[in-house]
Amino acid sequence: MTRVVTTVEDLRAVVAEWRGAGELVAVVPTMGALHAGHLHLVQAAKERADRVVVTIFVNPAQFAPHEDFDRYPRTLETDVAALRDIGAELAYAPTAADMYPSGHATSLAVTGPAEGLETDFRPHFFGGVATVVAKLFLRVLPDLAFFGEKDYQQLLVVKRMVADLDMPMEVVGVPTVREEDGLALSSRNAYLSEEERMLAPLIYAELQAAAERIVAGDNPEEVAAASAAALTRAGFAVDYVAARNAETLAPVRKAGEPVRLLAAARIGNTRLIDNIGV
Amino acid sequence: MTRVVTTVEDLRAVVAEWRGAGELVAVVPTMGALHAGHLHLVQAAKERADRVVVTIFVNPAQFAPHEDFDRYPRTLETDVAALRDIGAELAYAPTAADMYPSGHATSLAVTGPAEGLETDFRPHFFGGVATVVAKLFLRVLPDLAFFGEKDYQQLLVVKRMVADLDMPMEVVGVPTVREEDGLALSSRNAYLSEEERMLAPLIYAELQAAAERIVAGDNPEEVAAASAAALTRAGFAVDYVAARNAETLAPVRKAGEPVRLLAAARIGNTRLIDNIGV
Repeated sequence: MTRVVTTVEDLRAVVAEWRGAGELVAVVPTMGALHAGHLHLVQAAKERADRVVVTIFVNPAQFAPHEDFDRYPRTLETDVAALRDIGAELAYAPTAADMYPSGHATSLAVTGPAEGLETDFRPHFFGGVATVVAKLFLRVLPDLAFFGEKDYQQLLVVKRMVADLDMPMEVVGVPTVREEDGLALSSRNAYLSEEERMLAPLIYAELQAAAERIVAGDNPEEVAAASAAALTRAGFAVDYVAARNAETLAPVRKAGEPVRLLAAARIGNTRLIDNIGV
Repeated sequence: MTRVVTTVEDLRAVVAEWRGAGELVAVVPTMGALHAGHLHLVQAAKERADRVVVTIFVNPAQFAPHEDFDRYPRTLETDVAALRDIGAELAYAPTAADMYPSGHATSLAVTGPAEGLETDFRPHFFGGVATVVAKLFLRVLPDLAFFGEKDYQQLLVVKRMVADLDMPMEVVGVPTVREEDGLALSSRNAYLSEEERMLAPLIYAELQAAAERIVAGDNPEEVAAASAAALTRAGFAVDYVAARNAETLAPVRKAGEPVRLLAAARIGNTRLIDNIGV
């Protein structure tokens, strides 16, 4: 049984009851349109916590006017059914008017890991993410929060925000779930035509090949540039392919640094992102 | 006995012990240099809470490079002695390196009540205040926080921030404490020469006279402009005298709105602010 609450009062009442019983509470923030990747996050949360809250909120603050806020899939009924099947105790689905009431005037800004990459193409994105995630964390007051590594830069931004604001909780990254052909699961995959869907796994394939070349000793920046060129030749509009320090996302400066390869590319009207560790 | 802690671990251990005993915890954020106004805040906190934490931190993020960060008075020993006399249980005095460690990348921005007035003259001020107050609140995790009405715009900004981020706590404003001649207590009064100190109470006197004229039916904006002119004639460099909605700080639009009169003016190198309800 997955209970659905929409008000912060109901949410806090349930969480307070759990906490009163000494239970560990995890949150999995989502924008709904749940797929196997989200359910994997819930499973990871269930392994560490006694109770799991899944938040479902398509956050207007992280979409630019020209982006896909309106057409972003909203499937609350099937989302809740999926959460029930997997044993998530609580879904919290606030309205936009409840999250951002009239007079709302506070926002968060993150530099550091938020600089470059996604920010070059979606300048308002991480401010919107940091603000809504802070609000959700302070509404739920969880012990743990689970985010997918598929949005790797977002994971680092959220970790940074939680550390900087001294929120008494831990942010846990969970490895990306992929289709059999390697395509990272994403709610936006639903936008792809059959033809585009055939092309999409090439992003992951290129990242894997690039990682092998870097392990073999090739220069990370040159390898990333070559991968970007290969994706462009294959028909993608490439926003970036980049090799970065896996902890700070700063450019790779010396041998032995932990490296993460990150890519963003568009097929038709759909923008896909992926990343892997080297 | 006032215990002094400098680390978040020690702070949280003490607060957790109180909370485990079911006690209500209040915080009074200060920059030290405690005067009777601060001690009045502590007393107000003691009336509502079982335990009071006073934070002492001169926050570099809320000073612009040309402002008085370096010469701002730092008097930890006498501050702690004063807190002991008044029965505050805990002083939390973190270092700047602990509050803003290397890699710190998160800041808060508030619009709404933060717009105009102080922001026109100290554009970085409320961002710095909101960020450090959010950090302090999330370190202490209090039930209540006490701020002086002397920094009225700051009080509204902090209330807005706490509401917008859904922090589970209440922000309480405490009326301004004044010298016998009406001058609002402020750590910056210590900068005043004897001559400047004689002039300083005129700000409050002008605000009182202005409030009477508004109550008598005069136009609030015209009254505020006349007060600014009077202070200028008396030798002040006036940043603003303004009549604003007492809840939003928006311009006064209609009769019957709650009105707050706010002023900021410099004497020599010292900038003083004050405000009163109409």
